[in-house]
Amino acid sequence: MDKCVENKLNELREYLKKIEYINSSIALLQWDSMINMPKKAIQYRSQMLGYLSGESYKLSTSEEIKGYIEYFKDIDGLNDTEKAIISNIRREYERTKKIPEKEYKDYVMDGSLSGSAWEEAKEKSDFKIFEPHLKKMVEYNQRFVEYWGYEGNKYNALLDIYEPGINTEKLDALFGQLRDAIVKLLKKIRESQYKPNTEFFTKSFSKESQEVFAKKIMDKMEYDYKGAGRFDESVHPFTTNFGNKDVRITTHYYENDFRSALFSFIHESGHAIYEQDIPDDLQGTLLATGASMGIHESQSRFYENIIGRSKAFWEFFYPKALEIFPQFKGVTLDEFYDGINDVNPSLIRTEADELTYSLHIIIRYEIEKALINGDIEVKDLPRIWNEKYKEYLGVESENDAEGVLQDVHWSDGSFGYFPSYALGNLYGAQFLKKMEENIPELFTEIAKGNLNIVHNWLKDNIHKYGAIYKPVDLIKKVTGEELTAKYFIDYLNSKYTGIYSK
Amino acid sequence: MDKCVENKLNELREYLKKIEYINSSIALLQWDSMINMPKKAIQYRSQMLGYLSGESYKLSTSEEIKGYIEYFKDIDGLNDTEKAIISNIRREYERTKKIPEKEYKDYVMDGSLSGSAWEEAKEKSDFKIFEPHLKKMVEYNQRFVEYWGYEGNKYNALLDIYEPGINTEKLDALFGQLRDAIVKLLKKIRESQYKPNTEFFTKSFSKESQEVFAKKIMDKMEYDYKGAGRFDESVHPFTTNFGNKDVRITTHYYENDFRSALFSFIHESGHAIYEQDIPDDLQGTLLATGASMGIHESQSRFYENIIGRSKAFWEFFYPKALEIFPQFKGVTLDEFYDGINDVNPSLIRTEADELTYSLHIIIRYEIEKALINGDIEVKDLPRIWNEKYKEYLGVESENDAEGVLQDVHWSDGSFGYFPSYALGNLYGAQFLKKMEENIPELFTEIAKGNLNIVHNWLKDNIHKYGAIYKPVDLIKKVTGEELTAKYFIDYLNSKYTGIYSK
Repeated sequence: MDKCVENKLNELREYLKKIEYINSSIALLQWDSMINMPKKAIQYRSQMLGYLSGESYKLSTSEEIKGYIEYFKDIDGLNDTEKAIISNIRREYERTKKIPEKEYKDYVMDGSLSGSAWEEAKEKSDFKIFEPHLKKMVEYNQRFVEYWGYEGNKYNALLDIYEPGINTEKLDALFGQLRDAIVKLLKKIRESQYKPNTEFFTKSFSKESQEVFAKKIMDKMEYDYKGAGRFDESVHPFTTNFGNKDVRITTHYYENDFRSALFSFIHESGHAIYEQDIPDDLQGTLLATGASMGIHESQSRFYENIIGRSKAFWEFFYPKALEIFPQFKGVTLDEFYDGINDVNPSLIRTEADELTYSLHIIIRYEIEKALINGDIEVKDLPRIWNEKYKEYLGVESENDAEGVLQDVHWSDGSFGYFPSYALGNLYGAQFLKKMEENIPELFTEIAKGNLNIVHNWLKDNIHKYGAIYKPVDLIKKVTGEELTAKYFIDYLNSKYTGIYSK
Repeated sequence: MDKCVENKLNELREYLKKIEYINSSIALLQWDSMINMPKKAIQYRSQMLGYLSGESYKLSTSEEIKGYIEYFKDIDGLNDTEKAIISNIRREYERTKKIPEKEYKDYVMDGSLSGSAWEEAKEKSDFKIFEPHLKKMVEYNQRFVEYWGYEGNKYNALLDIYEPGINTEKLDALFGQLRDAIVKLLKKIRESQYKPNTEFFTKSFSKESQEVFAKKIMDKMEYDYKGAGRFDESVHPFTTNFGNKDVRITTHYYENDFRSALFSFIHESGHAIYEQDIPDDLQGTLLATGASMGIHESQSRFYENIIGRSKAFWEFFYPKALEIFPQFKGVTLDEFYDGINDVNPSLIRTEADELTYSLHIIIRYEIEKALINGDIEVKDLPRIWNEKYKEYLGVESENDAEGVLQDVHWSDGSFGYFPSYALGNLYGAQFLKKMEENIPELFTEIAKGNLNIVHNWLKDNIHKYGAIYKPVDLIKKVTGEELTAKYFIDYLNSKYTGIYSK
């Protein structure tokens, strides 16, 4: 490459590092505000966050960055990484530049206040506390959509943030097939005579013993929570990171349910190893992150469900669980396996079974689409929420905390994110198909506790690329096919027919 | 005031907020790196810190700030706060501007690396690990001193950072009197037949019970560690804050010594209430901090020793301690009081008794002065350290961890800070004199647990001013006199003659 181009690239890399340092600082301030911050500090903290976000905004929309974008527009001979760096900053520049700086700063600050209003509202189970904040966040997003412009549905502008290449047309099709298949399977299951036993999960399990067991699994997953990460407690489990050597997860323990913290540990560890695997040379390029939110969720949900709720996984781990938890005395592996795969339409998304989970997402997808298009109003959300839950899942919440207030996402305005979870299911099953082609002995090895073969495959095929490839390109590169709902539907049919045809 | 001047002042206040947001972010990143950060993250974290420090540097040395300094140079009619804001930014501008930006950034980054080298060195009790880092930090400071310029002794340039108005000439005099008085008292004590019993302190005290008891004291001190603060564990106890509503302290528990965590809780809480008391309208002006490090230490050491090691204090708290700690069964209040005031020259500064404590500081003062002036070399420190400890305190360390490596301060280059601790003793006794004049029933009230009268006095006379007044002006304003060693020496003589003339 031309010496001159090379210098310019190095210069750009130095510039991008500054954005990454600020973004990492923001992420740490946010993590701290969820984990450590005393309550009275919220106002000052949100001012700090507002200021840093403004600085990040300035750097991403500066004349300097514009100069880089223009310089590299006509440069040939860049490799995939370099091309991705350029197209990524262009994309961010164009999106960010369209929002006035003041408005963006206010958005971040209001998002921080809204976050603590949500926490309080959830604690008191009172939607009214959260309502004015949520209304604000919806309005911000409606204005942003207009600034950005969109093709077809307004909601497409938001989908594009988290899953470039996906739009409501595609989602309506994919989610339509998925919903039909799930509804059909649910009907079969309801008609089945068999009902897995789950009562042994709701005995008392101390926090300490849950942690000991979770560590055994995280160790096998190769999430380095000691040297390059940590885990803490928070209201809502999440993963965050500041570089690839400080990747933190959180969980929420329930002493009267064995499953909750366990599967959230596995889920968040799936996110965490993705971030830890992203190579050093992508750090500071703004590509040191997942290919998309959907791909990120594909990793967490792959571990949580496809691996973590498989028979093979528990062939290895169930004997270990028995050593720690006398609560399971007399429960066979088959009973345990059926129990963790019990299908039971319920209110809380994060506690949902693998089969009905996607219905939770489809509900949020429909609500978000309608909110952003102005077809429904924030004040009507508790009613709409309950109607949809009754219709799709046949359950009704008794209060806002286990209804419309259950999830954190809307509090900071992350509309368009939820579909990622269901897309993650589809990506995951499509990856599994390929993984089994490459490693025919996959589940035999898992049954021996050799989760490293799963990790290695994911690292080599997905993690090591960070955000170099768009999800639409990555899925093709890895599996040779475009995203389809087929494999996930096949997987669900095969697994749940197996369990429920006893 | 002129509308135009008022606008300019408001503009300046907005500008200064930015510096404070960055400085608070830096403080949070540093706190996190001591409390939460996984080890492998140190490199990236120090890059983040380096970047943010560079930004803070830029803001403090910008053309804009220069413009403000020049604008306000000839403006009359400013109130004390406004004058202090201007003189403070001028002082910082002049000091900071003289250090090249690159060098300052490197200094902060190297300081972060040096901090973790110190931690490792202390853990392994191996000075060699720390030596090259410490050498670097000394050299930075030697260069800085030359950039800044100095009158008389080179070390004066560093003293001026932490205690404006103090120089080696004054210190030599104050510390000289202090040393002579302590040595004389020590001689008397050595000749005394009486030796307080302390063996009941070294039974086993669980962390949990220590925490329960510490909370009772912090509650009475009115340190709001729930809503506007928190406490954690760290190798070396410290206090940090991000605004006045997020003031965090740390401690280090020893299960086999009742005194260590207890008095560090009291000490750090003394710092913490100072920061919490600084009014909202000083926040974001760069004056929302203590008047100086010496004044800050006067508050912490006032609570730790003058209050926390007084008979009156324990008249109230000892019965509470007895409820929690059966370890003290049969120990009378007098025995307990004599025990916490046992004079016992020893190796560790933070564990030192009130009387010999200042000798630890005088040793560091002499070493720092010699280091900065190039009279001694870093590599010789362990030997010099041990010689001085033998000479002044009659004790000898068996390893580096309890010798030259015991304190964190030098690791990030904070030379000139140590004298603050002994100055804090002097300020504190001088404040006490005045406080007793104002409140003759002071110790009677303390004996009833009414620590709020102490807190109110300190708040009204010291805390509420933040850094508006220089220490040299503040001590005069509050006590009507210049700083003197007299009151502290009187206090020591009276207290320790009382205890040891049994």
